[in-house]
Amino acid sequence: MNIALDMMGGDFAPDEAVRGVARFLTAGQENVHLTLVGDKDQLSPLLTELAVLSARVTVVHAPQVIGMHEHPTKALKEKTQSSIAVGFQLLAGKKIDAFISAGNTGAMLVGAHYFLKTIQGVIRPAISTLIPKNNGGTGLLLDVGLNADCKPEQLNQFAILGSLYARHISGIENPRVGLINIGEEEGKGNLLAQSAYPLLKANPSIHFIGNIEGRDILLDRADVMVCEGFTGNIILKLAESIYEITRQKEIRHDYFERFNFENYGGTPLLGVSEPVISQALAFSNMIDLAVKMISSDLLGKMKSRFERLG
Amino acid sequence: MNIALDMMGGDFAPDEAVRGVARFLTAGQENVHLTLVGDKDQLSPLLTELAVLSARVTVVHAPQVIGMHEHPTKALKEKTQSSIAVGFQLLAGKKIDAFISAGNTGAMLVGAHYFLKTIQGVIRPAISTLIPKNNGGTGLLLDVGLNADCKPEQLNQFAILGSLYARHISGIENPRVGLINIGEEEGKGNLLAQSAYPLLKANPSIHFIGNIEGRDILLDRADVMVCEGFTGNIILKLAESIYEITRQKEIRHDYFERFNFENYGGTPLLGVSEPVISQALAFSNMIDLAVKMISSDLLGKMKSRFERLG
Repeated sequence: MNIALDMMGGDFAPDEAVRGVARFLTAGQENVHLTLVGDKDQLSPLLTELAVLSARVTVVHAPQVIGMHEHPTKALKEKTQSSIAVGFQLLAGKKIDAFISAGNTGAMLVGAHYFLKTIQGVIRPAISTLIPKNNGGTGLLLDVGLNADCKPEQLNQFAILGSLYARHISGIENPRVGLINIGEEEGKGNLLAQSAYPLLKANPSIHFIGNIEGRDILLDRADVMVCEGFTGNIILKLAESIYEITRQKEIRHDYFERFNFENYGGTPLLGVSEPVISQALAFSNMIDLAVKMISSDLLGKMKSRFERLG
Repeated sequence: MNIALDMMGGDFAPDEAVRGVARFLTAGQENVHLTLVGDKDQLSPLLTELAVLSARVTVVHAPQVIGMHEHPTKALKEKTQSSIAVGFQLLAGKKIDAFISAGNTGAMLVGAHYFLKTIQGVIRPAISTLIPKNNGGTGLLLDVGLNADCKPEQLNQFAILGSLYARHISGIENPRVGLINIGEEEGKGNLLAQSAYPLLKANPSIHFIGNIEGRDILLDRADVMVCEGFTGNIILKLAESIYEITRQKEIRHDYFERFNFENYGGTPLLGVSEPVISQALAFSNMIDLAVKMISSDLLGKMKSRFERLG
């Protein structure tokens, strides 16, 4: 398999990305070839310095960089030779099997939208994150920001996408799906949650356990937690801030270490036809996740599930 | 001033309520008379035992109790002699100046809706909570569950109600109002947040500072944080669960002690014509809050603000 990395994205590019590549190549996974997308002049000396074996990597030159705070659509349109644009061109042309970036998240999402197809039957892709549970496990939360407004059917699709992810990537046989809501009983919540509940309840391809409340998010209640991207984004950023605050206050505890979202190997974009992972800083974790997504044929399973539903 | 307490609400009623009364009467505030609503047969021996001075309290007999898990509307309709129903009758009849309960929150909200008027001009009341900030202060978050779906104008009204509360109860001269959103710039967010932003920006009676994100909620960014009740409830319950989890894991730190929401004296219902406080366990804190709401004439100020706007 051939996994492409945006080498120019993130605050410490390209050094951090090159170190991640070196670490991954040392640790194993010999059947993985890495395509490094970025400025050749900057990358070559770093690769030599860290003795990265040229047989296992290909450098694809991309002289432009999209900055972390650039306007996504504008930047992608103007910088056709940026590492993000070039990476998506490779992915759309089936030259690579997955694309990973720690760069401008908005540009990654816009790029996926422009260059890739949504899986047939999926209304809109979603971004997800792992949330640390109090018992040591994790739960998948989606959407965390791509779909600020949703129709009930979208939440139902997030449940399907999330369940397949939890099963094939996290290894949970029959993942419990919870609808994030304000109240336990059916009929509670806002109009969206009220309408989504019966869809989830009637969905035979998921294991729906009902509503989960704010107090259940950090507990081991559900393996997949679905909501629209507004609430999901607030939850994710609030959880991230807890880690920041405990660091500042020097409150050290294993539990809060797990709120360091860098541990989780990035945010996969679920519902697009090719593996795209963004928004993480730990490159070797991201590569591991991409390997898992490819070797489990997660996207093939998502496609056939939605084909059967369609 | 005369403050009525539902003596029968909460998991440890009436003992906990009687202890709260005794504590309040010892601590001072001599101009406050307390009306204790509940089962006389249960209350009298406890009041005698704790030597509560009869000159400062009046017991109003209410033989029925609405349980914590009863259906609010049904229970209020059937149990007209319950402590909650009797309390609201007293408040609606101007026999008392405020009503406090640690009992069934739903019944308190339904009771307020049935027995009290909404302040003229207010679309719907909101419930609020104080959120601990990393610098030691607190911010007011509203709505936290009463309005699962909102129109933009409601968020604008929450900003006005919250600002008056922050000024007159928390003593913040010019409270900063933040709109909870997913993104910093105007135009970001779901349809509701996009539409609410210009209303808040154009509102001369608040100090609007723009959008605040999930990561800002626990930081000292805004004194008043507005959102619909779905997101607000998820935030509140998530914050409450952090306290629970740190207790379980025996992570002791002053910072997390402040996530014990019992410290904050209850949830005032903002936008109704009389002071109603619910959903807290610390009775003497609730009485203190009621005293502050009455002595600052918070509701008079809310009424006149909405009169001027109307």
